[in-house]
Amino acid sequence: MKFPRTLVFTTLALAAGSVLAHEMKPDFVIGYRQGVYKMIRWNFAPMVEMVKGEHPFDAAQFTRRATRLSFLSHQLDEAYPPGSGEGAPTDALPAIWEDHADFMAKLKDFQREARALRVVAETGDEARTKEQFVKTAGTCKACHDTYRAE
Amino acid sequence: MKFPRTLVFTTLALAAGSVLAHEMKPDFVIGYRQGVYKMIRWNFAPMVEMVKGEHPFDAAQFTRRATRLSFLSHQLDEAYPPGSGEGAPTDALPAIWEDHADFMAKLKDFQREARALRVVAETGDEARTKEQFVKTAGTCKACHDTYRAE
Repeated sequence: MKFPRTLVFTTLALAAGSVLAHEMKPDFVIGYRQGVYKMIRWNFAPMVEMVKGEHPFDAAQFTRRATRLSFLSHQLDEAYPPGSGEGAPTDALPAIWEDHADFMAKLKDFQREARALRVVAETGDEARTKEQFVKTAGTCKACHDTYRAE
Repeated sequence: MKFPRTLVFTTLALAAGSVLAHEMKPDFVIGYRQGVYKMIRWNFAPMVEMVKGEHPFDAAQFTRRATRLSFLSHQLDEAYPPGSGEGAPTDALPAIWEDHADFMAKLKDFQREARALRVVAETGDEARTKEQFVKTAGTCKACHDTYRAE
């Protein structure tokens, strides 16, 4: 079968080389990684405002944001390949690769708590949802304290 | 599942109504939007390589990437609020807000085809998956031609 290569590859001129080559281009990896965090922050912000009482608690919106957060947390699994600590501006510290097992364990903590946040948000229980949100945010901080530049 | 148009628009209006202060800061919105596209490109790249034959077709990987693509396509629904056409460097053209209905229709095309890509990828049918990938990429190009700066 022939494909209209021009159509695809004009649109996606960026995408060339092997899968591994892509993932090893530091600016591509770093851009991806920062994109995940931008999406996380976007969804985090309305939850923060609800937890702080700056906006009325809305269980449906909270669930939607927590569901996205949980999805996004897993997209970080492939965001820190070896060699992606430099090559473009990044706040990721070398410690991420120096103690990668600990870093990945902390990422797993975040993934577990973000999932728990989705589950509790779905129940509509405001108090327990807010409590779990604080616990989830704690897993962010635990990682940032050690592995992210100020 | 098909939703009645009124329900869709009510849902969108509610979502717009729940847009919080954060989301109206243009640099925050633009950063979010670009983050979505960075994640899209990251997942698109390995699919391009498989379609081009630069990398062996791997139905499981293709399905994983297509699933993410489908998820991400829906995250664009809230990425273009009024007023987010300036305030930070962006390739988004003013036409997006001048003919928003057409823009949103093109976004829906992308969402529909990305979902179809996930569905066909899950069957493991290489030829049909590649065909649907080209169709999906066509919806990207259709929007970029009119609404994205060169």
